[in-house]
Amino acid sequence: MTRVYLDHNATTPLRAEAREAMLRAMDALGNPSSVHAEGRAAKAIVERARGQISDALGASHADIVFTASATEAAALACAGRSLQGAAIEHDAVCAWIDPVLLADAHGVVRIETPAASCLQLANSETGVVQDLPSDLALSDLTQAFGKLPFGFDWLGAEMGLVSAHKLGGPKGIGALVLRQGLDVQAQVRGGGQEMGRRSGTENVIGIAGFGAASEAAQRDIANGKWDRVEKLRNILENALAAASKTTIFVGKGAKRLPNTSCFITPGWKGETQVMQMDLAGFAVSAGSACSSGKVKASRVLSAMGYSELEASSAIRVSLGLETTEDDILRFAEVWAQKLKKHERRAA
Amino acid sequence: MTRVYLDHNATTPLRAEAREAMLRAMDALGNPSSVHAEGRAAKAIVERARGQISDALGASHADIVFTASATEAAALACAGRSLQGAAIEHDAVCAWIDPVLLADAHGVVRIETPAASCLQLANSETGVVQDLPSDLALSDLTQAFGKLPFGFDWLGAEMGLVSAHKLGGPKGIGALVLRQGLDVQAQVRGGGQEMGRRSGTENVIGIAGFGAASEAAQRDIANGKWDRVEKLRNILENALAAASKTTIFVGKGAKRLPNTSCFITPGWKGETQVMQMDLAGFAVSAGSACSSGKVKASRVLSAMGYSELEASSAIRVSLGLETTEDDILRFAEVWAQKLKKHERRAA
Repeated sequence: MTRVYLDHNATTPLRAEAREAMLRAMDALGNPSSVHAEGRAAKAIVERARGQISDALGASHADIVFTASATEAAALACAGRSLQGAAIEHDAVCAWIDPVLLADAHGVVRIETPAASCLQLANSETGVVQDLPSDLALSDLTQAFGKLPFGFDWLGAEMGLVSAHKLGGPKGIGALVLRQGLDVQAQVRGGGQEMGRRSGTENVIGIAGFGAASEAAQRDIANGKWDRVEKLRNILENALAAASKTTIFVGKGAKRLPNTSCFITPGWKGETQVMQMDLAGFAVSAGSACSSGKVKASRVLSAMGYSELEASSAIRVSLGLETTEDDILRFAEVWAQKLKKHERRAA
Repeated sequence: MTRVYLDHNATTPLRAEAREAMLRAMDALGNPSSVHAEGRAAKAIVERARGQISDALGASHADIVFTASATEAAALACAGRSLQGAAIEHDAVCAWIDPVLLADAHGVVRIETPAASCLQLANSETGVVQDLPSDLALSDLTQAFGKLPFGFDWLGAEMGLVSAHKLGGPKGIGALVLRQGLDVQAQVRGGGQEMGRRSGTENVIGIAGFGAASEAAQRDIANGKWDRVEKLRNILENALAAASKTTIFVGKGAKRLPNTSCFITPGWKGETQVMQMDLAGFAVSAGSACSSGKVKASRVLSAMGYSELEASSAIRVSLGLETTEDDILRFAEVWAQKLKKHERRAA
C-alpha cells in the first residue's frame, strides 16, 4: 500500500515547474557576482526569480532579500530590534522576540503597538489566520504564502518572512520581504551580495526553483485549487468527529488555512499518534516539524489556553494540492481504529 | 566560436555526480526534522552527504555544520571572537577580523599567535598556499578543498570554511568544519537544526550535491587530475611571459594552487582586460568574483606590497579540470593581441 503524506505544512513536494527551472539553472555556469557573460547569465536567473516572487507576493513596493530559510530571514529581520509577539509564533521568530502578546482560545492575537510587534499571517500547527493591523513591524508569511491570496503591498506589514519549500520550491531557500526604504543589519557580511544585506554566493539553483514555484502557487490560488482541499479537510474533520466524541478541533471557530486540521484527543499523546499512524503508512505531525525531531507539548496550544495534557495530545494533518478523498477517508478509518485500541488500553 | 571559461576560482561547473545526487534528492519529500518515514529519508540524505564531506576533508575528528556559503560559515566562526588575520583573506573573513597580520611579497603570512589568528589555506586571487601553524583558530579552506590534498585532522586548524560550488557542487551551500569539542554561537536560531548551531530547514538538494561533489573531487585529486592542469597553467604563463616583458606573475616564487595564475601588466587596468577578453569570448576575472561586481584595485595585491597601479592592473586566470591546451593557447594569443593594442594606444 502506498504511503499517504499528510504533512504538507512541514514541507510539500517539489513542483514540476520548480524542478524544471532548477534543471535549467544547473547549466548556468557563472557566479552571479562575476562581470563576464557567464556571470551576467547567472545573475539574470536570480533577478528573474526575484521578480516572480515579488509578483506572487504582490510586493511591488518591497525588496526581496534571499536567505537560506524563513528562519534566517527572521534572524535578519529581528536581530538588533526588540519586537513583541505571541508564543504562537514559530520557533524561528520566538528565538528573537519578547513573547508578551496573548492569543485567545481561537488562537487570535490582538496587537496594541503594531510598529513594535510581529504577528504571523497563519499558524503552522493550527492553520489559524490572523487579521494583521496596519504598520505591523513583521509578519511571518511562511505558511500563508502559496495557500492564501494576499498582497504584501496592502497587508500592513513592514517586513515579511517566506520560505520556498512550503509552496513547492526546494528546501534551503527563503527570503525576507522588506518594504522599500527600510533597512536591516546584515548578519552575514563579506562580498556584499543582496545589496549588502546578506553576503555569500547566491543559491542560484534554489532561487530559480523558488521563483518558478511561487509563480505556479499563485496560479493555483487564482484558479481556486485550494477550495477542493478545504472541502477534503472538512470531510476529514467530520469523519474524525463522528469517530470520537472527545476530540477537539483547534481553531475551528476562527479563519483557518484551507489545508490544516489540528485536533486534540485528550490523553492520547500526539507523539504516539504520529508513530502509530507512521507505521500504518500515514505521515502527519505533532507540533511543528521545524523543531528538529523534538516532540513535546505544543507551545502554540499552551499559549491558546489548552492544558498540558491537551497540548501534548494533538496532531496536525495538513493536506496538499494532490491529496485525494481516498487518502482522507483511509486516514480517518485507520485513525479511528487506533483510537479504539488506545481507548481499550486506557480503560 | 564557443566561449572559454577560465574563472573556475569564482565558480566551477556542476559535476555530473552532483547533478545526479541532486536529482535523486528532489524526490525526497520529507522535512529532515520530521519523525515519520519521509522525514527520516530526507535526514538520511543529509547525513550521507555529511559523511562524504567529512571523508573528503579527512575530518573524522570534526563536526560539519552546513551553512548557505563559506561566507555564512565565516560569520558563524568569527562572530563573538576577535581573531587576527592578514588583508589577503577573503572579504567574508576580512569582515570580521582585525587585519594586523602582514603578508610578504610572495603572499606568505607569518603567524605569531595561532590560537587568536586565522589564515586561509589558499588564496582565491593568487593561488598562494600557506603552511598553517599548529593550533590555528580558523582556516578558510574554500579554494584549497577539492584542489589540494590535505586532511583537516592533521592540518592544525580548529575551524575551517568550505564551499560546495568551488569544487563542482551547487552554489548556495557551504559548511563550517569544527574540531569536536569546540562550540560556536548560533547566529540563526529557531528549530535547533545542525545540533543547535544553525537553525532552518536543511538545503537537502544542495547538501546532496555538495556530498557527491566532494567525493568526486577527492577522487580526482587522488588520481592526479590536477597535475595536467598545473602543466597547462605553466604553459599559459610561459606563453604570456613570451608576449610581455613587463608582466609580473604574482606568487610564482611560492607554493600555489595548480590552476591559478594571477598576473599584473602595469598600466593596463585589470577591469579593462576582463571586459576586452569577455568580448573576445574568454571569462576571467580581476580580483575576487565574490565582491559583487565591484572591480577595483586588489586588496590582496596591495597587502603583498604591490603599488596601487600594479594592484589595479591584474587579472586572474583560473583553470578547471576540463580546460584544454587549446583553450589556454587561444587565450594567450588573444591576450597578446589585446596587449599590443593597449600598448599602441598608450604610446
